[in-house]
Amino acid sequence: MRILGLDPGIARCGWGVIEVRSAKCEVRNCGCIQTEKKEPLPIRLRVIYTSIFSLLKRYKPDVVVVEELFFNTNAKTALVVGQARGVVLLAAAIEKIPVASYTPLQVKMAMTSFGHAPKPQVGLMVKKILSLKEVPKPDDIADALAVALTHAFSYSSPHLSKE
Amino acid sequence: MRILGLDPGIARCGWGVIEVRSAKCEVRNCGCIQTEKKEPLPIRLRVIYTSIFSLLKRYKPDVVVVEELFFNTNAKTALVVGQARGVVLLAAAIEKIPVASYTPLQVKMAMTSFGHAPKPQVGLMVKKILSLKEVPKPDDIADALAVALTHAFSYSSPHLSKE
Repeated sequence: MRILGLDPGIARCGWGVIEVRSAKCEVRNCGCIQTEKKEPLPIRLRVIYTSIFSLLKRYKPDVVVVEELFFNTNAKTALVVGQARGVVLLAAAIEKIPVASYTPLQVKMAMTSFGHAPKPQVGLMVKKILSLKEVPKPDDIADALAVALTHAFSYSSPHLSKE
Repeated sequence: MRILGLDPGIARCGWGVIEVRSAKCEVRNCGCIQTEKKEPLPIRLRVIYTSIFSLLKRYKPDVVVVEELFFNTNAKTALVVGQARGVVLLAAAIEKIPVASYTPLQVKMAMTSFGHAPKPQVGLMVKKILSLKEVPKPDDIADALAVALTHAFSYSSPHLSKE
């Protein structure tokens, strides 16, 4: 199973493609789509959409996974993130790829078995599980890989482990 | 000048095309895109996007106008509206049509010269300005026409009047 994890945002949209094979998860590629603050919002949304669209065409994931928004945020942040999230979900729908989503708590539980783990601990677990040399930076990439792994563990074979 | 006003939402997305000619504003067409609650969110976003895209192709507006979100709302509502707003702005960017936006206060001021006018009064003014037989229903259509008119008045000729 190939999973595209996404951490949508207007300024930065982290992404990570992982491959789940029998007892192992491997990174195929990951990165961060960045948009220019000086550009009008519709143009920034177009950059995100066309970039995600290219990723879908290139990696042909079986599923796209995004994190649910943490609702303990303000309406302005929610609106901005919502706009980026909207175009990301649209790209998946246009390409007819199913979308799964997980709450921040589910992601932290899956990554660290501790719902209130600090962000750096999630990054360290992503590095460990995927046998990476370093924690992916910026955080948006680590977060995208974390949500992809959360989905992998939710649909894991008995042999698939976080360790 | 031809203006497409939009009131984006996930369940209902109101739209109205107005034509501004010398001293007059006229409705060319208006309607409401509706999506099924039982459908997954990405599919609902696709319905909105493809419908807006068809409107842009059909009416070729010079500008797309949307209302800014009223921030005195909760984060959940903002996220949901944001997702619909994102795909609407994307459609405009893909078609290279400029986007303008106005705050709810600006719309109410333009429509009624009274920033805290109740919703029905905005609808009545839309009906009057556009010489309609009835206030457009649902409210989403009246709101879409109101934001389109707000833009028309902002770029009006000296002869263009609200009366």
